[in-house]
Amino acid sequence: MKLVSVRYGTQETVGLVWGDDLIDLGRGIRVYRLAKEGDPGPPIRSLAELLASGVVTGSRPFTIFLAEVVSFLDRHHLWPTLTIPGSPRLGPPIARPGKIICLGRNYAEHAAETDSPVPEEPLYFVKASSAVIGQDEEIVYPEGAERVDPEVELAAVIGRRARGLTPENALDCVLGYTILNDVTERSLQQRDLSAKQPWFRSKSYDTFCPLGPALVLTDEIPDPHGLQMTLRVNGEVRQSASTADMIFRLPDILVAITRHITLEPGDIVSTGTPQGIAPIRPGDLVECTIEGIGTLRNRVVAEKPAAAE
Amino acid sequence: MKLVSVRYGTQETVGLVWGDDLIDLGRGIRVYRLAKEGDPGPPIRSLAELLASGVVTGSRPFTIFLAEVVSFLDRHHLWPTLTIPGSPRLGPPIARPGKIICLGRNYAEHAAETDSPVPEEPLYFVKASSAVIGQDEEIVYPEGAERVDPEVELAAVIGRRARGLTPENALDCVLGYTILNDVTERSLQQRDLSAKQPWFRSKSYDTFCPLGPALVLTDEIPDPHGLQMTLRVNGEVRQSASTADMIFRLPDILVAITRHITLEPGDIVSTGTPQGIAPIRPGDLVECTIEGIGTLRNRVVAEKPAAAE
Repeated sequence: MKLVSVRYGTQETVGLVWGDDLIDLGRGIRVYRLAKEGDPGPPIRSLAELLASGVVTGSRPFTIFLAEVVSFLDRHHLWPTLTIPGSPRLGPPIARPGKIICLGRNYAEHAAETDSPVPEEPLYFVKASSAVIGQDEEIVYPEGAERVDPEVELAAVIGRRARGLTPENALDCVLGYTILNDVTERSLQQRDLSAKQPWFRSKSYDTFCPLGPALVLTDEIPDPHGLQMTLRVNGEVRQSASTADMIFRLPDILVAITRHITLEPGDIVSTGTPQGIAPIRPGDLVECTIEGIGTLRNRVVAEKPAAAE
Repeated sequence: MKLVSVRYGTQETVGLVWGDDLIDLGRGIRVYRLAKEGDPGPPIRSLAELLASGVVTGSRPFTIFLAEVVSFLDRHHLWPTLTIPGSPRLGPPIARPGKIICLGRNYAEHAAETDSPVPEEPLYFVKASSAVIGQDEEIVYPEGAERVDPEVELAAVIGRRARGLTPENALDCVLGYTILNDVTERSLQQRDLSAKQPWFRSKSYDTFCPLGPALVLTDEIPDPHGLQMTLRVNGEVRQSASTADMIFRLPDILVAITRHITLEPGDIVSTGTPQGIAPIRPGDLVECTIEGIGTLRNRVVAEKPAAAE
């Protein structure tokens, strides 16, 4: 099953993609709960609210619950009422993740192209959650930047609290997958690296974390390690690889992180980018495609002169 | 004025410290709004909910609003009803900040003791928000760690969205100040630094971000640059300095960050630690004191054998 963040009219909700239809799942779940349990539960206008509503207890039980809701809506002829018309604007699946943890050098040929050794253990860093944008939103090219690179990555969305995971149970905390474009101010990152300075900022400028277009649950992607991924700039292929080529696979990554750091619902773990990084410029159209998820599409625009908010 | 996060009975709320009393401010604001406006507004059980409730429009207007609420509660003899009895447990002022941005090497003598050059511009990195703990909660000493250091820091709590700040208006986005203990797995940080690897993890282990005990609003700390700060381990002074010695002062720090990154309500900006870092061990009691804020107190305990959640 596939979820999206939807804005239609003045409303925001979680949409469920079902064939050619898009269903207002936030409203659907509340109708279902009201009819079945006598209480609609709290409002569900975002995936964060869905995760907090108590219906997500794991990816597998959640898809079973969703199947029940879908069947209920269909049986009671509520489908037309809850169908979202037209082509609504999609937001990022999670607007403000608690943490966005990204893997560094997790594809051997990418490590080689950055003149970096292949790591002996999963290397991870973070992006600021305020950098997140959604489908069709603009990547702002910072004034004075010398080189900005997009990077296509498969990202796992965490569905439940996890600490001390084992390779066997690690994937149980994953609700589903989306695409993350790890936009990077490369020249600044290199300067910070050379000066042995933290390079958080080069990854965390506003708009440097396109996320989406959909969250695909694990029923559709039981194994995240054989997906074709492509990054195109103005239609030209820059990156093309398979997630099978990750050095550290997702279970190992999750084990390494949760050895010391608790993952929480809504956190994002992004699995690294393959070879083929190359700069973008204002005006470019960046398209990140991953098999089974879709295409995350963002136009690059030049920064407007600074104005205080 | 001074705010704290309070747990009493089964409830959580925001407390206002008023002389020797502690007032249930969350409930007080709702009573005030219901009486004055006919609607109590949304629940206020945390500072995050207070920030989202619409009453915080800036530090100065907020303190004026709080003075009105206090005067109303007093005038209508609601004081006794809203007083929180006993010594309730305090949580961190913000349980899950959107971002925790920390300054590196912002005191010259600390830069010297780590054999690092004094930076030419503010250097910042992040800690994971899942690392936050409050007053009297335990710092977990990781199994296998060789050296763990506490670091006392003055932290600003952001009250409103800010981008493109100028030195003149930068402090307007600050709601108030608290104490942050930037606990660091130093041996791991050094290994990651030497291998040119990201060192996010060494700062972000669970419990590595004690925060509190109170949020002191800017009416009580109009200038954050002349406060005495001290870190004691088992009563012995390790760090002792004045915030006057910061290399980059808070307005310059906020200008540097918001050049590219939006600060949002509830974000934390921590201003760096002075000289005197030294390791802690399980059993130690760490006390971070900053003039006008109080003492943040946390015991170090050894990690228990890992158990999956």
